[in-house]
Amino acid sequence: MANETVVRFGILGCAQISIKLCKAISKAQNATLIAIGSRSLEKATAFAAEQGLPEVVRVYGSYEAVLEDNEVDAVYIPLPTALHVTWAVKAAERGKHVLLEKPVAMNVSELDRILEACETNGVQFMDGSMWLHHPRTAKMKEALCDEQRFGQLKWIHSCMTYNPGPEFLKNSIRMKPDLDGLGALGDIGWYSIQAILWSVNYELPKSVLAFPKATLNEDNVIISCGSSLHWEDGKSATFHCSFLTYVNFDVTILGTKGSLRLHDLTLPFEESLGFGTFSESSEIDYAKIEQGRWCPRANEHVVETMFSQDVWMVKEFADLVGKIMRLEMKPEKTWEVVSRKTQIVLDAVKESIQRGYESVEIVMN
Amino acid sequence: MANETVVRFGILGCAQISIKLCKAISKAQNATLIAIGSRSLEKATAFAAEQGLPEVVRVYGSYEAVLEDNEVDAVYIPLPTALHVTWAVKAAERGKHVLLEKPVAMNVSELDRILEACETNGVQFMDGSMWLHHPRTAKMKEALCDEQRFGQLKWIHSCMTYNPGPEFLKNSIRMKPDLDGLGALGDIGWYSIQAILWSVNYELPKSVLAFPKATLNEDNVIISCGSSLHWEDGKSATFHCSFLTYVNFDVTILGTKGSLRLHDLTLPFEESLGFGTFSESSEIDYAKIEQGRWCPRANEHVVETMFSQDVWMVKEFADLVGKIMRLEMKPEKTWEVVSRKTQIVLDAVKESIQRGYESVEIVMN
Repeated sequence: MANETVVRFGILGCAQISIKLCKAISKAQNATLIAIGSRSLEKATAFAAEQGLPEVVRVYGSYEAVLEDNEVDAVYIPLPTALHVTWAVKAAERGKHVLLEKPVAMNVSELDRILEACETNGVQFMDGSMWLHHPRTAKMKEALCDEQRFGQLKWIHSCMTYNPGPEFLKNSIRMKPDLDGLGALGDIGWYSIQAILWSVNYELPKSVLAFPKATLNEDNVIISCGSSLHWEDGKSATFHCSFLTYVNFDVTILGTKGSLRLHDLTLPFEESLGFGTFSESSEIDYAKIEQGRWCPRANEHVVETMFSQDVWMVKEFADLVGKIMRLEMKPEKTWEVVSRKTQIVLDAVKESIQRGYESVEIVMN
Repeated sequence: MANETVVRFGILGCAQISIKLCKAISKAQNATLIAIGSRSLEKATAFAAEQGLPEVVRVYGSYEAVLEDNEVDAVYIPLPTALHVTWAVKAAERGKHVLLEKPVAMNVSELDRILEACETNGVQFMDGSMWLHHPRTAKMKEALCDEQRFGQLKWIHSCMTYNPGPEFLKNSIRMKPDLDGLGALGDIGWYSIQAILWSVNYELPKSVLAFPKATLNEDNVIISCGSSLHWEDGKSATFHCSFLTYVNFDVTILGTKGSLRLHDLTLPFEESLGFGTFSESSEIDYAKIEQGRWCPRANEHVVETMFSQDVWMVKEFADLVGKIMRLEMKPEKTWEVVSRKTQIVLDAVKESIQRGYESVEIVMN
């Protein structure tokens, strides 16, 4: 630990999610918060007071000011999606490493502008999908990779929904085309797509076809939609995301020999108790089914964790940044690829909806 | 109970499922097995010996002989799907009440011939979908109908798969167009469609659209497929059925205020222990989610049961038959409607696949 760099963070914006990140940064030993900026100094000051931020944290009345602070090594950007390209590019140009909230951009060409700026300026990029950093996720991947037990992956289904109510649907920034303009698809469909891609080691599907009759608001922002995804080798997946139903964060992954299932992808039920769980099942006796008996319930696996997944994310990001700062390595590209492929599929689903539910081929370039 | 008629059953065919039904009939107080027929007397005799059927059970070397037995009140028909229309119609014409294994027919026009024969001859019809008769199912319906907790139903997903292996895919009657010619769609997709229709009180969807790239064998029998279903009021559903992946019998039903979920629709995990379970959840505090905490795990409801669902099915069928025999009522039409609507949607999914994944409108007639 003696050799560990403590990465100095600035946060652009006092969004609700910023509260969580302030806490995560304070818990990660290799990170420290030194600046927060909002569009008004009043709002930033109030946020700092409410959250009890230490006095050393500089409070700024603009996002620019955070980027101009030479002591800030890295920024967390939780601004509305439509503002990401502007502020992530500016941050990279100031040499700040970029932890960018998901969805990362309005479309992949915007994301590419961000990634180019990161490349040019030698800064680390990572999106804010926390679940990928939970120790449970690595354990689930191990289970999927155990071909003896899981066999070949054939099918994935994910359902991500919550019902924030009519006030949200009317006024939330997640329903405004010029703010979080990707609606439910960006807010929660993002996770479904990412979980599907994660399951198949980020092999892009060959085509996607959105389910008919997506629900859009008067500004064409998606309230509820879904899609099937198809790979050349016959694998397929479906997902559904919606702001209209009770909370449900399901992923089911089916292989020839086993299954893996969880109901709490984005926010593990027991995280505050220091663990996460998933269910896995395999090796049943089909002869018994024929006789009307049945396989046992799935096995529940418990994965202990010292930190919640937001802390793991900050730690992993800060670790990469520290290594770059110590000139031990160049920016790690893995996280760009994860974000970019997720955005490519998300764009294709949106295009399929816009084109009247035509199939959209995915060409990686 | 003194007034209860004991319905005398004959079984057409010595299928694997017949073993289960023999046991169920023996456990149901209002039913008794008196005849079993196979295409060969040798096979029927061997079955009777292996299953230890009482000596009073007449063993016949043809299906006809069972139908000609004047003491047989009702028949259970577990023959391959393509033979249903022939034998169910013959049974009805002989005045036998018909308990017909699912899928009920190769298509709805065949089913209509069966239902007409039942109507003309005043006999009861019911299909062999056991899960509908489990006490758990009634409790789940209560949960869905509790609008305070569940709200309005918006979305349903069901996944029914198992992987019986290459030998099955090559040689099983479930893969032969002239036998169980509906493949995975008939064998397990039937349950998904039925569970979806059950959820919405058998309101038919307006249209169905099969997922692209269904897997069919060289005889065009479905090995794996899925579909989305759409209702006029914005409700939608998806299902996936397959003979290619590990066993999974999931249903998830989402309302605006609650969710209901089970992983063992067709064969409850704990049925042999005298209960069935389902999960239900509602009333979370969204403010807590925003703060990064989370709703508790779903509540697991335990429904005690004196019998397994196959026995409940036989009891319910025999109860209706007994009432008809005692001239207390005419045949109950509810079960015809359940089967017929399931078959209508199944036909539409098959048609969508055959028409190259076009949307198929459903017109009830």
